[in-house]
Parts: sequence; C-alpha cells; structure tokens
Amino acid sequence: MSVAELGFWTDGAAKSAILRFVDRAVADVAPEERVAVFDNDGTLWCEKPAYIQLDFLIRRLAQMAREDSALTAKPAFRAALEENLAWFGDAVTRHYQGDDSQLEELAGAVLSANAAISVDEHATRVKAFFEQTTHPTLGRPYTACGYAPMIELLRYLEAHGFTNYIASGGGRDFMRPVTGAMYGIPPERVIGSSVGLVYRDGTLVTTAQPEFFDDGPVKPVRIWGRTGRRPIFAAGNSNGDIEMLQFTDSGPQPSLSLLVRHDDADREFDYTAGAEKALGLADTSGWTVASMRNDWAQVFCE
Amino acid sequence: MSVAELGFWTDGAAKSAILRFVDRAVADVAPEERVAVFDNDGTLWCEKPAYIQLDFLIRRLAQMAREDSALTAKPAFRAALEENLAWFGDAVTRHYQGDDSQLEELAGAVLSANAAISVDEHATRVKAFFEQTTHPTLGRPYTACGYAPMIELLRYLEAHGFTNYIASGGGRDFMRPVTGAMYGIPPERVIGSSVGLVYRDGTLVTTAQPEFFDDGPVKPVRIWGRTGRRPIFAAGNSNGDIEMLQFTDSGPQPSLSLLVRHDDADREFDYTAGAEKALGLADTSGWTVASMRNDWAQVFCE
Repeated sequence: MSVAELGFWTDGAAKSAILRFVDRAVADVAPEERVAVFDNDGTLWCEKPAYIQLDFLIRRLAQMAREDSALTAKPAFRAALEENLAWFGDAVTRHYQGDDSQLEELAGAVLSANAAISVDEHATRVKAFFEQTTHPTLGRPYTACGYAPMIELLRYLEAHGFTNYIASGGGRDFMRPVTGAMYGIPPERVIGSSVGLVYRDGTLVTTAQPEFFDDGPVKPVRIWGRTGRRPIFAAGNSNGDIEMLQFTDSGPQPSLSLLVRHDDADREFDYTAGAEKALGLADTSGWTVASMRNDWAQVFCE
Repeated sequence: MSVAELGFWTDGAAKSAILRFVDRAVADVAPEERVAVFDNDGTLWCEKPAYIQLDFLIRRLAQMAREDSALTAKPAFRAALEENLAWFGDAVTRHYQGDDSQLEELAGAVLSANAAISVDEHATRVKAFFEQTTHPTLGRPYTACGYAPMIELLRYLEAHGFTNYIASGGGRDFMRPVTGAMYGIPPERVIGSSVGLVYRDGTLVTTAQPEFFDDGPVKPVRIWGRTGRRPIFAAGNSNGDIEMLQFTDSGPQPSLSLLVRHDDADREFDYTAGAEKALGLADTSGWTVASMRNDWAQVFCE
C-alpha cells in the first residue's frame, strides 16, 4: 500500500485537499491535538444493501424466531426469518428522512438480540459472525469490505502524527472485535452506539436498555466525552455525520471535513438516500467531497 | 525521580508485590492489554479535609450566592458562603455510609454551578482555580498535592509498557485540564463523572443534568465503555473502588489490585471513613494494601 502518496486516490481536488491539510496540520498543530474521527458505515466499510451489523442482528433474530415461534408475530422477527433485508434497510433510511416508527420496532428486537450475556460472550458471537459471513452481493468476506483508500488514509494520517478514532452510529461492541485487524484501530479508540452494561460478580453483562445512539448531535458529545478534544479531521458520508463535520470545522485549528459520496454503481453502490442534507451542506460549508467514482483509484483491497 | 527502583516506596510487602506483578505482566501479558486504572481522590491526590473539586465548587457557589442573595436560603449555598467545608465533606462520607440525603442537596447545587457554558470556558475556570488555590492545611498548591509514590508508579508502569487511565468519581472535565501536567495522563485517558453536554452551533455546552456518577459498580462499566478492555492493574482507596478492584482481579490474566490506606496523620491524614468495607475486603481478596505511613518513603513531591 503506497501510503506515502495516497496511491489509492486519483489525483484531483479531494486528494489535493487532504495532502494540503495534512501539511498544514503537521506545521501548525501539536501532535497530541491531531485527532481524526471516522464514521464507519459507508465511510470505512460498505453499508449496502444493508448495514453489516443488521446482517449480524438479522441472523440472530432468525435464530431466536426458529427457537420460539411466538416471536414470528413481531414484524422484525418475521422479516428476519423471511430474509427480508429491505424491511431493515428501510427502517434506517426512513429514520434519516424523519420517520422513526419502523426504527422503533427494529430497535426493540435488536436490543433483545444479544441481551443478558457477558461482554466476552458478545465479542465471541461477533467474531464468529465475521469469520463465517460474506457480503451478499460483493462476494467478499465482510472483513474485506473496508475501503482501501480510506484505510490508506488512516495510515497516512498516523504516519503524520494523527490519532485515529472511529465515531460511528454502529454498535461500539460490534465494531471493536474487528477494527484492530481491519483498520489498525484498537478498541479504546472505537466510539459507537451502546446498550447499557451492568457489573455482576466480576464481569460485565449486556442489558436490553439502550445507552447511546451515537448519531447526529450526539457524535460531537461522545467524541468529547471520550477524548476531551475537538478533532481537526472528520470523515463521514450521511446526514448523521453533519454535526461531527461541523464540530470539526468550527475550531480554531486548521481542519478538514471530508464527505464520501457513493456514486459508483459499478464498483460499489450509487445512492444519496440518507445523505441528501449532508451533500447539500458540503457545498456551502467548504467540506471536501470524495467521489467514490472519480477520486478512488480502487475501492476495496485485493 | 528514581523510577527504576520505585525509590519513593519503602522496601516491604507492598513494593515487592508491585515489582513482582510488573515482572509477571511483562512476561505474560501483551503490551496492548497492560491497562492500569487509578482512582484519583485519595489515590493519586489528597482528598482531605475535602475533595479538591468541592473547593472549586464551593468557591463558585459562594460567588453565585454573593451575586444572588436568594440562593442563601439553600443549605449548600449557605454552607459555601460560610466556608463550612465540613458540611460538604459530610455529604460524601454519609454517601459511602449509605445515606444520600445530604448528597442530593449538594448535587443540585453542584450541577447548577457550571451549567450553560462551553466546555472551553469550563476548562478555563478549572485552570484558573488550580493556578490560584493552595491546599487549606498542607500549604502547598493543589497541583503539588499528588502523591509522589503514585506518580512514580505511573511512570514505572509506563516504562514497562502499561497504559494508564484515571477512573475516578471526580468530574471528568474537572480533572482533564490538569492531569497532563500532574500525572502525565492526557484527557483521552481520564474517565470520571460527568454532566450532560449538548451540541450547539459548533460547540459543546454544559447542562445541569447528571450523566454518569462514575463510582462503585459504574466504574467497571465506564472502564469497559472507554477502553473495551479489562484492566490488569487497579489502584483505589475507598468503598467506591471495590467493584473496579474486583473487576480487575477477576480476569484470566495476572493482575494486581492495590488499596491505599490513609494512616499517616503526620504527613497527610489518618482516616478510614468511607473505606471500611474496602479495607475489610482487601484481606479476604488478596489485594495489596499500601500503608501511607509504612510503605511510602515520601508522600508529596518536593
């Protein structure tokens, strides 16, 4: 991987903006303040046709429904049994469009799916899923669905003294078991949504109570809670990343806010649903837009 | 500072246990899993005659009461105006003894004391306090009230590949502005109690809503939330540290749980209030007890 030259990036405005920003940061920002935050779904790894975590949860819901047929009366469990992925994807898209009714139905099922187990058992389930599951249309393991240019960018920032964090709406404890191998980001630098945990007899046990939904205006709050710093670099791809991108570019230091645009039906997917407002704001806010089709020489690692 | 030999520690059981544990950890535990957590009040810095943060809050409450005399009808504001430190200390001691009534009165006042300001303004207030205030009986700046043997221990653990975190019931955003200079611990490794923050127009603003009281069984939950790891070293001094010490010594790796005992009226303070249960459990749990009088050659840095 040609980290030194961002070889997976095509020469153009996005690559130039990144290189220029990193030069300025190295010149003007103390290393401990070179904090970079990355959304995960759609920014570091593929989020279509459905979130990877939804596939994990759907398989678990289907298993629960097979073990207890009474559950099939509930739409989320029925959709899981019928492998109706669109029902799940719709719930999240509608959330970003302002309609939360289907998301609430989904959330109840999701929160019950891995409740009342230890955090170690949860990590074991996540690892087993990633070892056994491939992407439904791309035909590659989920662990190979990270974007090569973005992983290269993580290394490039690190090589210039940055510390990278994930700040995702996805589940913190769903990402942590694989972010080290996929992105070189250790668990202590993964910020995400979470369910409540309780301490019991020397271990931590999952509950079915939501703790954080790490999205929208919650992202800057959680980034501060975890780091005590304002990032100088942020990358996202959806309306849920707007406040994180704004928080990053509102500080006194040089900063770069990067928005990934999914416009490559040949190599990945082409969609703007759930990102309409963010793409509109990019123009007026001076954010850098990375077009997957035009700015990325390669999408996935070999 | 003779980090290599823990020179601020007297030869004895506590020092031997630390040296033996670190040797084992270096031999048997991967560096990224060498996570150490430290309580702050009474473990890293002096907590008597009252918590340092209480002094900060009392000064702020007194200022508010001087500006609005209606506030003097409230016990906490009246105690602040009258410099009645004992009222505040009692509230916390009673909490550890199971009576929360006075703590609730205190909490309401405390939560209002720094509400509706930006996190940057909050940090400015904290820094000003530490620059201007000395300990009421020890006659040294609060910034010099850290325990020399514990700061030496932080460096010793670091020198052996450990990553140190603070996990304190004290305020996260109260500690962060000074932990770098006092302990060499950056803000991203400070875990503590917090009030809710809201994102507004590019900045984060404090609220008067409590978020976490990072104490007792909440400590292991927050340590996991922040690090995704089970520590292998923990140091505390009160009943509020019991679950953190248990969580640390319940894992599969070599571990050390250290309890600081305040038994040195000549050089610091002599008290067990709020630590009775922890000191009792130390015997039955195999925790290492560090007697300030017997195990520390020196208490404070010069």
